[in-house]
Amino acid sequence: MDYIHFLMLFSCLMLVYSNLGQCERSTYIVHMDKEAMPMIFPSHGHWYSSTISSIKSTHVQQPPEIIYTYDNVVHGFSAQLSEDELHSLENSPGFLTAYIDRNLTLDTTHTYKFLSLNHVTGLWPTSNYGEDIIVGVIDSGVWPESPSFKDHGMPEIPKRWKGTCQEGPNFNSSLCNRKLIGVQYFDKGAKAANLDLNTDNNSGRDTKGHGTHTSSTVAGNYVEGASFFGYAPGTARGVAPRASVAMYKVEAGMDRAVADGVDVISISMGFDQYPLYEDPIAVASFGAFEKGVFVSTSAGNDGGTATLHNGIPWALTVAAGSVDRFFAGTLTLGNGATILGWSMFPASALLDNLPLIYNKTLSSCNSSDALSGVGHAIIICEDESSFYRTDVISNVAAAIFISDNPELQLSSHFPSPGVLISRKDGSVLIEYATKVARLPPSATIKLQQTLVGTKGSPVVALYSSRGPARACPYILKPDVMAPGTLVLASWMPNKPTASIGGTIILSSEFNAISGTSMACPHASGIAALLKSAHPEWSPSAIKSAIMTTANPLDNTRKPIRDSLLNFEAATPLAMGSGHIDPNRALDPGLIYNVTRHDYVNLVCSMNFTREQTKSILRSSYDCSTPSSDLNYPAFIAIYKQNREGTVMTRVFKRRVTNVWDGPSSYRVELQLPKYTKVTVRPTTLVFNKKYEELSYQLTVSYSGGNGSLPAHGSITWTEEAGRKHSVRSPIVIYAL
Amino acid sequence: MDYIHFLMLFSCLMLVYSNLGQCERSTYIVHMDKEAMPMIFPSHGHWYSSTISSIKSTHVQQPPEIIYTYDNVVHGFSAQLSEDELHSLENSPGFLTAYIDRNLTLDTTHTYKFLSLNHVTGLWPTSNYGEDIIVGVIDSGVWPESPSFKDHGMPEIPKRWKGTCQEGPNFNSSLCNRKLIGVQYFDKGAKAANLDLNTDNNSGRDTKGHGTHTSSTVAGNYVEGASFFGYAPGTARGVAPRASVAMYKVEAGMDRAVADGVDVISISMGFDQYPLYEDPIAVASFGAFEKGVFVSTSAGNDGGTATLHNGIPWALTVAAGSVDRFFAGTLTLGNGATILGWSMFPASALLDNLPLIYNKTLSSCNSSDALSGVGHAIIICEDESSFYRTDVISNVAAAIFISDNPELQLSSHFPSPGVLISRKDGSVLIEYATKVARLPPSATIKLQQTLVGTKGSPVVALYSSRGPARACPYILKPDVMAPGTLVLASWMPNKPTASIGGTIILSSEFNAISGTSMACPHASGIAALLKSAHPEWSPSAIKSAIMTTANPLDNTRKPIRDSLLNFEAATPLAMGSGHIDPNRALDPGLIYNVTRHDYVNLVCSMNFTREQTKSILRSSYDCSTPSSDLNYPAFIAIYKQNREGTVMTRVFKRRVTNVWDGPSSYRVELQLPKYTKVTVRPTTLVFNKKYEELSYQLTVSYSGGNGSLPAHGSITWTEEAGRKHSVRSPIVIYAL
Repeated sequence: MDYIHFLMLFSCLMLVYSNLGQCERSTYIVHMDKEAMPMIFPSHGHWYSSTISSIKSTHVQQPPEIIYTYDNVVHGFSAQLSEDELHSLENSPGFLTAYIDRNLTLDTTHTYKFLSLNHVTGLWPTSNYGEDIIVGVIDSGVWPESPSFKDHGMPEIPKRWKGTCQEGPNFNSSLCNRKLIGVQYFDKGAKAANLDLNTDNNSGRDTKGHGTHTSSTVAGNYVEGASFFGYAPGTARGVAPRASVAMYKVEAGMDRAVADGVDVISISMGFDQYPLYEDPIAVASFGAFEKGVFVSTSAGNDGGTATLHNGIPWALTVAAGSVDRFFAGTLTLGNGATILGWSMFPASALLDNLPLIYNKTLSSCNSSDALSGVGHAIIICEDESSFYRTDVISNVAAAIFISDNPELQLSSHFPSPGVLISRKDGSVLIEYATKVARLPPSATIKLQQTLVGTKGSPVVALYSSRGPARACPYILKPDVMAPGTLVLASWMPNKPTASIGGTIILSSEFNAISGTSMACPHASGIAALLKSAHPEWSPSAIKSAIMTTANPLDNTRKPIRDSLLNFEAATPLAMGSGHIDPNRALDPGLIYNVTRHDYVNLVCSMNFTREQTKSILRSSYDCSTPSSDLNYPAFIAIYKQNREGTVMTRVFKRRVTNVWDGPSSYRVELQLPKYTKVTVRPTTLVFNKKYEELSYQLTVSYSGGNGSLPAHGSITWTEEAGRKHSVRSPIVIYAL
Repeated sequence: MDYIHFLMLFSCLMLVYSNLGQCERSTYIVHMDKEAMPMIFPSHGHWYSSTISSIKSTHVQQPPEIIYTYDNVVHGFSAQLSEDELHSLENSPGFLTAYIDRNLTLDTTHTYKFLSLNHVTGLWPTSNYGEDIIVGVIDSGVWPESPSFKDHGMPEIPKRWKGTCQEGPNFNSSLCNRKLIGVQYFDKGAKAANLDLNTDNNSGRDTKGHGTHTSSTVAGNYVEGASFFGYAPGTARGVAPRASVAMYKVEAGMDRAVADGVDVISISMGFDQYPLYEDPIAVASFGAFEKGVFVSTSAGNDGGTATLHNGIPWALTVAAGSVDRFFAGTLTLGNGATILGWSMFPASALLDNLPLIYNKTLSSCNSSDALSGVGHAIIICEDESSFYRTDVISNVAAAIFISDNPELQLSSHFPSPGVLISRKDGSVLIEYATKVARLPPSATIKLQQTLVGTKGSPVVALYSSRGPARACPYILKPDVMAPGTLVLASWMPNKPTASIGGTIILSSEFNAISGTSMACPHASGIAALLKSAHPEWSPSAIKSAIMTTANPLDNTRKPIRDSLLNFEAATPLAMGSGHIDPNRALDPGLIYNVTRHDYVNLVCSMNFTREQTKSILRSSYDCSTPSSDLNYPAFIAIYKQNREGTVMTRVFKRRVTNVWDGPSSYRVELQLPKYTKVTVRPTTLVFNKKYEELSYQLTVSYSGGNGSLPAHGSITWTEEAGRKHSVRSPIVIYAL
């Protein structure tokens, strides 16, 4: 597999904090290549000064100045720079990398910031952080003593709450409070065998960690001083830090949750290969929808095409993406060159100016005998499998692992002191270690560094299951993408989270783990915030707002890429409508509303038996107007087979409701899929008042062959006034 | 050596937070001996309920209730208890130990609390936390990037400040700020060879850690989330968090510090065996005294009698004591028994229900070969030297070290996962490991626990150098004791602070170290607070206030004990006037003032040559009235030799000044040394107004033999009105 684009992503890691204005300055640490200094400069300090004074400054008041120069563990300087000044600096000779001074990022564990949630404007202040909303989490239980479930600052429990705090061994009902308002467990009928959620005790206590992590991600309270062994340090909080949590262990709890009065259900698990009428989550979600409860689910972690589960038309299906965060170890060679490596080694190992050892005998790092003679030095390991060996640690001070395998950065497993670097950087390193004659090679590694603002983020995660959904391929799935890779959230103190070497198993109150299970609660928390801000919105209105405002572009304004496709542009089958954007979802302009009747028509179109249909719809229904053309805020045109040149046509009808407080008018904008003609009628929509509903028809005519599929484009309704509403839906052409 | 009292100290470790009122309740975790449960109870929960309901409650409103019962890593329960209720609970059958729920102690690193400094009353609010005071620290330099030296919340630099921020390699003057206002280094004349403070770079940057630690202890700013690898967690701050720091590297800086305008000099180093006129610190301190600058020094770490250095009459000499804090690992055996062990292993090793292995072949723990077959289990090590072996870790999960050596608890060195327990607890452990038949022995160890409120604290530290001072034995030294053992303060990130096994060296921004060097800056910080609260006080007034209000009793109101004397009562030669008590020093009632003239008379009495005398007094002086009877707030009667029955008499004259805002009257109270008659004339002192000075005469007549020496007692002037001033001075009878 060619991971060249992956390398580009991190080797040009440039850290610009996206919320900063063009002219607002922040303190950056700038790494320079000491050897690139032109001979004319008497010292590095002079060179740095010259470099900084020659960059193009957009700052009106004064040019940037060097705050401090570094000459030991780092070569370079710090300076107050605007974003533009930083861009200019990037083009200066000898520039290596730059990142924001860590002190500025301390109030993070960080996904809420990546999602642009903030205290000044948008969804957080408008929703009062989710106050008065109850999120039901269906999961492996909860560790109630986790600091994320303390209730300082929480309002009274909503009066509509009917649930209980169920006692059990090791679970006293006094463990519930105004944050964790309910806990129930269901030891019968737990079928979630695919997630290994066996109920090994008869209480709501989490014995897996999974439920503690997801529920604290949705709505954990503020916890100062959180980190994963020094990585991702800061104040942790859930997406909806003032919402209440009710835990149901396990999926049999959905029905109970609805009865108890929850507003949002978050369920980070799914049943593979079940038809909708046999999928307990699909069936229960329909009931939840009928009661006005929003259901958010995970897409699954199978990675491949059409492996997605929870492809439930009346639930939100969430894919997982990366976060703009890099857990780093800075490697500084004896000649001053700096290489930014990846590390999550869980201790503050001091690796200051140690001998650097490379030779072919050692570099496979698979022989304890060979390693045992090395002593307190840093070795270079070229064999990827050595990364997993636990005997490296007991023989040397640290190891530099060379590998381009991106899977190594999906888990926090990092048992030996050291860093992981790319093959490209590895050749620079080996060149230094083997060809430097004057001094014995040496290196310094600084661990426990957390860099944010990684450019080109998010990227669709390798593991995130892709659509279409087998259970109902006519509805485009997944719906959106949310942060899922190495998310920091609460964990149980009696379950391992990391290890040092082979013998020392570590525990932590927080864990950094990856999966669509971690993405789902981000969407659930955002749904809770939206419900608090717009109590009148139906579940389908919330879902439409989330989908039509999602961002198909990354933080460099280029199309989001897919790590499964060599970092080529991702399709909606991987990321749905795009990366979830909570502040925009607060004010979507238009809503695609879906009624119970619409869903009945969809289910009636699916060739189920009467019993199968009834198992979903349960109460009275009328199958007289079946239709697979649901009023969904996304489009998928499916063909069984197509010969090149033949034109295949699909017609979709949609209704959109104006949720802006007055008249507004929109015109259509299209991004055409390959070999596809798209016509929309009408091309403008003029609303005279709030809640007016208008219809349009979208016709897709595809004339390419199967080899060009899937193809994808989009339709966007853009408001003509200056209010900037734009209502986007992806269009996918797919061959089954 | 018999450490039986040492064992008593920790095996009856009862943690009561001393500031709590008798009826105010706190949450305690109570450990119970599961096997002590009478047969009549159907479950442990019933037993605990019965226990808690049967204790004598002083709470008027409601009896205490069990909040939560524990049955896994701990056997016992948590409950809200008042201090009295806790005392009653201690006498219940099966009671093992109890400590305050850790959450209540999180805003600590803790010595300020042990010293009763608080935000509500006393020295902190009165002095505004030392605002506008400059402390000059003479030490190994400073690591200016330490978070303790950030200047958030600091006022402007005092206008009188004349010092500079000296540049050097790796030390830009921009590193100074409103907290760290000055840095100077002196590469010539640094003689402090006994502290190994060689200036290995030409800047004020600390390369030892020592100066960073002491200066942050005096006046470090608030740092949230500080800890030593999870131990002593909380918000760090110096004793005078709003005072400014000026660092002088090294002792040649005292003169400069006085010229720069510092108010207090803190110097945690000393010269052994020098006469006063050749001791640079003694000489420079006299100049500081003349300029009104208070000098605080450390007594030294030699431990033995008459080893004390810095026995300078015009400086404060500070001994070191323990803190009411215990760094714990809780050991829970498979049968539920709990043993409180000592641990500072620097990682959160998860040691949950592992096999416990004990046999005579293994228990010396000195054979890698034997250990290598053990696997992931907990072993019992009986040989104390195994504690220092680094190969234990690479072979087993954890080790339980059995030792009664108190020196193991003076350093944070703890390289292997595990705990240190006493021989008494060790025999319980071995009994369990060898005689339990039904189930294989197992154990759980919970690390990184910090317990505060240790009863019987402080204790004079083993290492603290004892008086009398050879340089001037007629002045009782040390003056006071302050916290010195395992004090948490800032450290340099590029210097090791801990290790895991033999190979992983760790760094930390904070370090926990022991010495009189750590005690001295506590006293310096208190002097800064007093100077801020009483700008009119002379250095000798501040010293008198600190000494006459020091506490000779520990937190159980029994005499402070000495760990060098098998935990018998300490003498003033070990602890001076007692443990420093900042809030009482704010309002001492009376002051023993000492003028320059008094010190001149003292120096003139010391049989120095004219040159020697002049090297101390420098400017003009008049030796016409030599006197060794300085107006000191402490008494030492020295005899060369005494035969039993012979009466040896010494007469002391003293003057005391009323510093209370109006009339006040005092009567004398005496604690007589053995075989000693003490007469005081007059026995009452009636002051008509503030600043009135009255005299008294104290006559000591000793009739015992040398074998009964040193003997010690005290004189206390107690105010007759209800204002509770009591002005205490120790009296020591000593044979040279």
